Amino acid sequence: METLSGVTSQVTAAAQKIAPAGSEDDASRRMRRCIDNCRDCEQICLTTITHCLSKGGHHARPDHILALMNCANICATAARFMITFSRLHIHICGACAAVCEACADDCEGVMGAEAEDKTMAECVDMCRACAKSCSEMATPMKSC
Amino acid sequence: METLSGVTSQVTAAAQKIAPAGSEDDASRRMRRCIDNCRDCEQICLTTITHCLSKGGHHARPDHILALMNCANICATAARFMITFSRLHIHICGACAAVCEACADDCEGVMGAEAEDKTMAECVDMCRACAKSCSEMATPMKSC
Amino acid sequence: METLSGVTSQVTAAAQKIAPAGSEDDASRRMRRCIDNCRDCEQICLTTITHCLSKGGHHARPDHILALMNCANICATAARFMITFSRLHIHICGACAAVCEACADDCEGVMGAEAEDKTMAECVDMCRACAKSCSEMATPMKSC
Amino acid sequence: METLSGVTSQVTAAAQKIAPAGSEDDASRRMRRCIDNCRDCEQICLTTITHCLSKGGHHARPDHILALMNCANICATAARFMITFSRLHIHICGACAAVCEACADDCEGVMGAEAEDKTMAECVDMCRACAKSCSEMATPMKSC
Repeated sequence: METLSGVTSQVTAAAQKIAPAGSEDDASRRMRRCIDNCRDCEQICLTTITHCLSKGGHHARPDHILALMNCANICATAARFMITFSRLHIHICGACAAVCEACADDCEGVMGAEAEDKTMAECVDMCRACAKSCSEMATPMKSC
Repeated sequence: METLSGVTSQVTAAAQKIAPAGSEDDASRRMRRCIDNCRDCEQICLTTITHCLSKGGHHARPDHILALMNCANICATAARFMITFSRLHIHICGACAAVCEACADDCEGVMGAEAEDKTMAECVDMCRACAKSCSEMATPMKSC
Repeated sequence: METLSGVTSQVTAAAQKIAPAGSEDDASRRMRRCIDNCRDCEQICLTTITHCLSKGGHHARPDHILALMNCANICATAARFMITFSRLHIHICGACAAVCEACADDCEGVMGAEAEDKTMAECVDMCRACAKSCSEMATPMKSC
Repeated sequence: METLSGVTSQVTAAAQKIAPAGSEDDASRRMRRCIDNCRDCEQICLTTITHCLSKGGHHARPDHILALMNCANICATAARFMITFSRLHIHICGACAAVCEACADDCEGVMGAEAEDKTMAECVDMCRACAKSCSEMATPMKSC
């Protein structure tokens, strides 16, 4: 994004210090992507809450709505740890990966055999993508 | 963004109900932009905190760091009100506009005559843009 | 609370600078109370979400759950503005008062003539109390 | 607290389902205490940020301020997972324990041999207490 170019270059510099492994460019690119995934996942989970509450029935069961709500919260928190270059992001990203994975599973359970629910399907995809990149960030550093 | 297309269309539909004024497409486009501005502003404020703490001196004075921190928080909250289609977003966006404007002023005071501080300059621009779109969202509806 | 005694004395000192009106002790006491109200209101709104989702039906309608969710978020944000002594708390507290009032109204609408719903009744009381103290904090200073 | 009595009894009921181990009363009492610790820790970390920025010098070094800021954020998030009875709180509490422990260590490093810094000392104590109760909540259930 145009306005965030300065931000991006800062992230690049800092990610090289705290991100796990690989070439430095690769490390910073993966951290940048993980931040974006966490922020997108927060947003889509919030949107999916309104969607599911509107549909009602199975979609509005307590566990499902709360899973989405909590997923949005830990994603937002994980993004903030990375944006501020905390070395402790590995702990938060590990926890975030578990929550995103569980949220995706829960969404799939709710969708069931339903032919077409684009919002839910996108939420599942985003949660899986976020879980994947958070898992990578949570992995302890190894030299390559 | 590709993955958020479903989100965007939902926002469009809902924004038409709660967004102020104009043609419906215009209303939803402005709400969408305001959500993006709030979320970008949250991120750049957090990044600017790390930047200013690192520079130290005038940049790290308490009022400035706290202004950035609080600006990030109200921007995140304002975005959530709009993402979940709350009619009360007009109150939150009004408050957010005031905070973003004050944060931009504060950043300019800290920069002073300094020749070049790209992160701060971007933060000022983003805060001003966010204040502007939040002000628009805070304006009570009028028919056109 | 025992562990927060140092916090309380700091708040007292700072509130005397930014809190509106009255004797200084009175100003700091009211700000302290407003922080507590905002934090309690955040917590009870979150608890009421789980309660209402479990009850289902009218209690789980989208507007109601989202009102509680957004109320929790602005309360948390308002508390942070005051804890960090931001002069801009007057804007946030003003918006927070409007949101708490609307949330209380919404809860009452959902309860209707229902004989007994202790969680909801407590949520209404807390939202009203929070709205009241936030309104006070939002009032521009006047000398006494 | 008087106004939260209904909340407390709800937490008791739910904690018995998700809290680890021991008698049910014990489990819910520990979860209740962990929620309180997380919320108190959030507040004292925010207060300590303003304190340390005001003191400047070593107290305002970037890593320290950001450690406090991130600690406040994960504590708030952990509290929300438990308030909403998420079974995934074990992951979040585990991460939160690590962050609180690191924050306490960092505060001690900043204090050094300093004779008297009551706010910092209280922050250390609160972070340690929060880390301890979060660790307990993160422990997988075992029958007694």
